[in-house]
Amino acid sequence: MRLIAFQHEGRAALGARLGTEVVLLADVVPGLPQDPALALAALGLPEGAPALAARLADAPRRPLAGLTLLPVIPRPGKVVCIGLNYALHAKEGNNPIPDYPAVFFRGPTSLAAHGQALLRPKASDKFDYEAELAIVIGKRARHLSEAEALSCVAGYTCMNEGSVRDYQRKSTQWGMGKNFDRTGGLGPEIVTPDELPQGPNALRITARLNGETMQDSNTSDMIFSVPRILAILSEAMTLEPGDVIATGTPSGVGYARKPPVFMKGGDTMEIEIEGIGTLVNTVEDEA
Amino acid sequence: MRLIAFQHEGRAALGARLGTEVVLLADVVPGLPQDPALALAALGLPEGAPALAARLADAPRRPLAGLTLLPVIPRPGKVVCIGLNYALHAKEGNNPIPDYPAVFFRGPTSLAAHGQALLRPKASDKFDYEAELAIVIGKRARHLSEAEALSCVAGYTCMNEGSVRDYQRKSTQWGMGKNFDRTGGLGPEIVTPDELPQGPNALRITARLNGETMQDSNTSDMIFSVPRILAILSEAMTLEPGDVIATGTPSGVGYARKPPVFMKGGDTMEIEIEGIGTLVNTVEDEA
Repeated sequence: MRLIAFQHEGRAALGARLGTEVVLLADVVPGLPQDPALALAALGLPEGAPALAARLADAPRRPLAGLTLLPVIPRPGKVVCIGLNYALHAKEGNNPIPDYPAVFFRGPTSLAAHGQALLRPKASDKFDYEAELAIVIGKRARHLSEAEALSCVAGYTCMNEGSVRDYQRKSTQWGMGKNFDRTGGLGPEIVTPDELPQGPNALRITARLNGETMQDSNTSDMIFSVPRILAILSEAMTLEPGDVIATGTPSGVGYARKPPVFMKGGDTMEIEIEGIGTLVNTVEDEA
Repeated sequence: MRLIAFQHEGRAALGARLGTEVVLLADVVPGLPQDPALALAALGLPEGAPALAARLADAPRRPLAGLTLLPVIPRPGKVVCIGLNYALHAKEGNNPIPDYPAVFFRGPTSLAAHGQALLRPKASDKFDYEAELAIVIGKRARHLSEAEALSCVAGYTCMNEGSVRDYQRKSTQWGMGKNFDRTGGLGPEIVTPDELPQGPNALRITARLNGETMQDSNTSDMIFSVPRILAILSEAMTLEPGDVIATGTPSGVGYARKPPVFMKGGDTMEIEIEGIGTLVNTVEDEA
């Protein structure tokens, strides 16, 4: 199943995409909360996926084309990001292979929807892309073992974990460079785990800038796997429905290229993950 | 005016404290959203403070003693934290005096209410306190100059920006050590700027562990002032109503003491800021 968030009667709502059409989930699940994160909690994914799918068949549909998409979870409680999770990416930045993940956070104001323009800030010309697999949490979880960790996952989506490199390095902490407004694409949709290989392992992940492939790797190259990340994070914090976890980017980012390549107004960025889809964002310069 | 968040009919609500009594703000402001962050936005603070105060006089009141307090904003969009913002604290950790603030984030699951027990995690015995002045945003703001920066502030509160030191240093990024569940006290109440000196400058800030003073400094010793922090952050990100900004801790933290001192089950922590109040939390060991 493929879930999207979109603007509905002035607020965010969750829908299921079926081809070129969309079912508003509130139409088929009585009493479903409007807020996508709360709605996700009420759906009880991943177990709830088959029951929900069964309700979609005869439901009223609306054309996808007419909808204003939002980041798949517009206001996550947490957006937790893992740094340096692919060996070649650690190496290209002259970082050692980590034995524990670098963990930092993004705020909701940093997110952008599929199809929305990313914003290159006027403060910097060092706006870089990062193709990432993102986990969307479906159930509250704490102290997960690796073996049980996937039981809390509602689904997966693509992230362009856009980073303003000079601001990322103004101090030891990356928070500033990772939190410029509308720099992080999240979408196009949440794909439930039943549509993907377990893990999800061995998915090709690519980033294209104006059609040219800049990153091309595979989720099997992660240093910390999805279950391992969930176990590590949940040792510290409760994962809640709607929380998003970005799992790190492979090599090929712009700053490490010779010469460096950065995004600018007029560019088009695509993040494609096999079996999940393609997140497309143009780039506009902040006025 | 002094605003609190508390449990009301199963959800979080915003109230104004008047001595030992509380007015539910939804009782005096028709159509006020229930969620404290959205309610704050609707109140239009700081300008809206006098009009709101005028409505409180004849409003129905309930005893403060009977209420279950919540973190003053239970689900902030962002909790942005500034590291190393007092010179002596930078020095006690052998860090240079920063010329740009270290910026990191906490998630809402890391927060605790005034009067609620902080949770010393079973993963670590290095649970440290950090007394901090916290800013609560009242109005959406971006690209603030220092001169205008205070116009977006709804008020101020105390934070115990509790940190699990060994996890904070497992990688270059502090995210893990700053995000253990229920390790960050936030409260007791939001104090509107009209009750405080401009800035707010020259407020004594202290931390007491079981009655013994561990930190004793003054907000005038901050390296980056409140207006400067707001200007720096808003260069990158839109500040939204209900966002919380923790402004860094002075010297005297536990890990830098000889011998080190950490919080443990049965302890009582108090964070007091002159003119704002005292945040009190006991500590319990995670089961």
